[in-house]
Amino acid sequence: MAPPFFAIVSGVGAGTGASVARRFAQSYPVVLLARKPSSYEPIVAAIKAAGGTAIGISADATDPAAVDAAFAQIEKELPGSKLAAAVYNGGSGTGRKSFLEQTLADLDLSLDSAANGLFYFAQKSIPLLLAAVDSSPHPPSLLVTGATASLRGSAFFSTFAAGKFAQRALTQSLAREFGPKGVHVALAVIDGVIDIPRTQGYVVNNGVDDGKISPDAIAESYWHLHTQHRSAFTQELDIRPFVEKF
Amino acid sequence: MAPPFFAIVSGVGAGTGASVARRFAQSYPVVLLARKPSSYEPIVAAIKAAGGTAIGISADATDPAAVDAAFAQIEKELPGSKLAAAVYNGGSGTGRKSFLEQTLADLDLSLDSAANGLFYFAQKSIPLLLAAVDSSPHPPSLLVTGATASLRGSAFFSTFAAGKFAQRALTQSLAREFGPKGVHVALAVIDGVIDIPRTQGYVVNNGVDDGKISPDAIAESYWHLHTQHRSAFTQELDIRPFVEKF
Amino acid sequence: MAPPFFAIVSGVGAGTGASVARRFAQSYPVVLLARKPSSYEPIVAAIKAAGGTAIGISADATDPAAVDAAFAQIEKELPGSKLAAAVYNGGSGTGRKSFLEQTLADLDLSLDSAANGLFYFAQKSIPLLLAAVDSSPHPPSLLVTGATASLRGSAFFSTFAAGKFAQRALTQSLAREFGPKGVHVALAVIDGVIDIPRTQGYVVNNGVDDGKISPDAIAESYWHLHTQHRSAFTQELDIRPFVEKF
Amino acid sequence: MAPPFFAIVSGVGAGTGASVARRFAQSYPVVLLARKPSSYEPIVAAIKAAGGTAIGISADATDPAAVDAAFAQIEKELPGSKLAAAVYNGGSGTGRKSFLEQTLADLDLSLDSAANGLFYFAQKSIPLLLAAVDSSPHPPSLLVTGATASLRGSAFFSTFAAGKFAQRALTQSLAREFGPKGVHVALAVIDGVIDIPRTQGYVVNNGVDDGKISPDAIAESYWHLHTQHRSAFTQELDIRPFVEKF
Repeated sequence: MAPPFFAIVSGVGAGTGASVARRFAQSYPVVLLARKPSSYEPIVAAIKAAGGTAIGISADATDPAAVDAAFAQIEKELPGSKLAAAVYNGGSGTGRKSFLEQTLADLDLSLDSAANGLFYFAQKSIPLLLAAVDSSPHPPSLLVTGATASLRGSAFFSTFAAGKFAQRALTQSLAREFGPKGVHVALAVIDGVIDIPRTQGYVVNNGVDDGKISPDAIAESYWHLHTQHRSAFTQELDIRPFVEKF
Repeated sequence: MAPPFFAIVSGVGAGTGASVARRFAQSYPVVLLARKPSSYEPIVAAIKAAGGTAIGISADATDPAAVDAAFAQIEKELPGSKLAAAVYNGGSGTGRKSFLEQTLADLDLSLDSAANGLFYFAQKSIPLLLAAVDSSPHPPSLLVTGATASLRGSAFFSTFAAGKFAQRALTQSLAREFGPKGVHVALAVIDGVIDIPRTQGYVVNNGVDDGKISPDAIAESYWHLHTQHRSAFTQELDIRPFVEKF
Repeated sequence: MAPPFFAIVSGVGAGTGASVARRFAQSYPVVLLARKPSSYEPIVAAIKAAGGTAIGISADATDPAAVDAAFAQIEKELPGSKLAAAVYNGGSGTGRKSFLEQTLADLDLSLDSAANGLFYFAQKSIPLLLAAVDSSPHPPSLLVTGATASLRGSAFFSTFAAGKFAQRALTQSLAREFGPKGVHVALAVIDGVIDIPRTQGYVVNNGVDDGKISPDAIAESYWHLHTQHRSAFTQELDIRPFVEKF
Repeated sequence: MAPPFFAIVSGVGAGTGASVARRFAQSYPVVLLARKPSSYEPIVAAIKAAGGTAIGISADATDPAAVDAAFAQIEKELPGSKLAAAVYNGGSGTGRKSFLEQTLADLDLSLDSAANGLFYFAQKSIPLLLAAVDSSPHPPSLLVTGATASLRGSAFFSTFAAGKFAQRALTQSLAREFGPKGVHVALAVIDGVIDIPRTQGYVVNNGVDDGKISPDAIAESYWHLHTQHRSAFTQELDIRPFVEKF
């Protein structure tokens, strides 16, 4: 019998993470990681209600010990399962602020969440993805959520950009090292405001319909990345609303 | 009754164009443009055999009058149909050659096929795509096939890069102008050797399995681009074999 | 006796070309190429008045025969001289215009002036630069004037960007081929409005002092590029006013 | 009387830092920061021997308190002086190593030296540079030393790239915020091996003459950046040997 496969989504809240988890749950049991149970519980419930399998685990992605513990728990809960897809959402900013008002804490927040968090996550998930190369229905994938700030610095978001740039460097490096071993590592550069409860009040792109990014649409692109044939991997793609200036 | 929709693929041979035509023919009647009937006839036959609709038209993409005539013929053959997707494959090179051995003819070949050809094609197809925005099942799309040379110049492929850079400039410009009107313009940067009869003898990436790009895999990414929600358009993505250095 | 060295500046008008010619005339006899004598005559006069040597030649940079003739005339006027630096300014646009209002003539104007013109100029000057590698006081240099449109397409300047992208492709390719032979090929990406008589009425960057680029300042950077040690070549640099958004 | 101006160079060893310090010492008193006195003492001596003024201060650039102390000492030693130029060299790597063999310590080393160190340095120097805008002989400048890894991730240097990407993000952000206030922030992307005692044994580019970058040549480009007119700032330039592949 073929081994069962599963997916992990780190950084699950109301947006991209939730949509990606639901999308991948159509094909795999999904493990959801978030700091607080309240972040993953509704999604776990929704996936189960739709007939899928979902496990929520509380873990602070910026705490190596917590990430270790989460992966240990996964092994216990899904014994013998292989990892088909790992998705990392993370990168916290501190809001618009002059560089001179930013503190070391602002820089640390960004680097920890975008770079160190991905580092720990990849350290734990890459070996599992490598172990799935020969049997996974699609090339085992590590998918990372980037932002406009992954590609350009910005006057008032300097430390946020630092973290997202560092994250992109890791993603590119991982693609170059593990692509040839069969693991698909890709970055999605999300260039726009995502349409989630927290952004409901934001007026962007003059309030036009579909001027905010549907997280479910993002999830479709992640699923496409995951299912690309290994002769045709995409390493980086941008995602933005049709009306967004760029 | 909803108006019928169709797709056009310009530059159909044994590779990307053929695969894209077959993929889009699963959903739309497809018009295939190529210089010589021998380029499109087998694909038209294959699509028909699979139950699809395909029309082949002979047209030199670098000849504005021929492109005009082709679009006039399309209107006659598919009256009342709307254009859902237009795909441009084109960009001829003259092989590895020192810049000092390149001639104006080499430069013209590249600019004509990659830039001027796209220019004519877009001049005819953009108005049709705009006319389909309100009714098309997916955002009307202009998809362009780029190459490694779209992003970097190269010692012995200088004129080829000139054409592909120019083509990328047009694609980006069209995305910025017509994206906000609902037309999805995207470039796929194909970074590797495509697995087609002509390249069968090439040993690339040490001859490893899947070291050449499957054109059917490329076609899946084009279909994904076409079906992206308009809140989540990708403007540019790269496609390369898992083992390809980059 | 050391052979004498000279510089050529193609595309001399009131802006970058004139300043670069004056700057290089501090060290070399300078040949100025422009379509009309009225474009180079005042600069030739100014250089001579300052004690330098300058030769003006009328030549349409987009006409291969005219470029041939110009280089033949140079050989006659400066027998035995070696080419230390060649500067190409060129790339005409047609003004802000929707893609659908652009014509083939607009595209041709841009490709001809930015890409084909550089192609002819480089075909003639690269062999002369190669011949100067062993004796030139500074690495023989081919310097090209780019623009914002060398790096990004733009909704209403689609054909202009096509030419400037193609030009950048050629420049990069030439750098990769002839750098290792000792010729320094570089692109300066001018990102802003240049302060010349024609732009005097433009209000840019809120009319702030130094909000338009001083062409003499551009010329200093070209001179720096020319004098860089061959262990430390710059291939591309951007130049923009301190207040310019980017 | 005009106030006196000075320069600071952080990260002074045998390479870029030493050459930049000597170059800027031709025009300004220079403060040299390095962890160990042995790193700056010979350069301080050389500058003094050449008739310049140099002050060496021991400070670990990754320790905020040490950076604070260094700037306090500068104020005491150069009372009333204004800061014309601040140069940051930093970004340590851990050598070629698979991602799976890298540890959190490797990542921290890179982020601390390339990103956090620049953050502290800029927090202290930007206010001083702003205070010099109105009187400085050249636009007050913050110049940062990047590397190939600032622009691309790499299979076996993943954490090093993370730091250098983050550093580039900060540099770009600072340029966008403080450029309009008159401070010139630029990144030099050093793409090659620098010719210093430590690399003497390295055979690069087949051992060709000038196949390693002369640090004095780098210093000339830094001086050029510093002296650029504020209407013509360069934000980023690459520096590589003429024979280097790129």
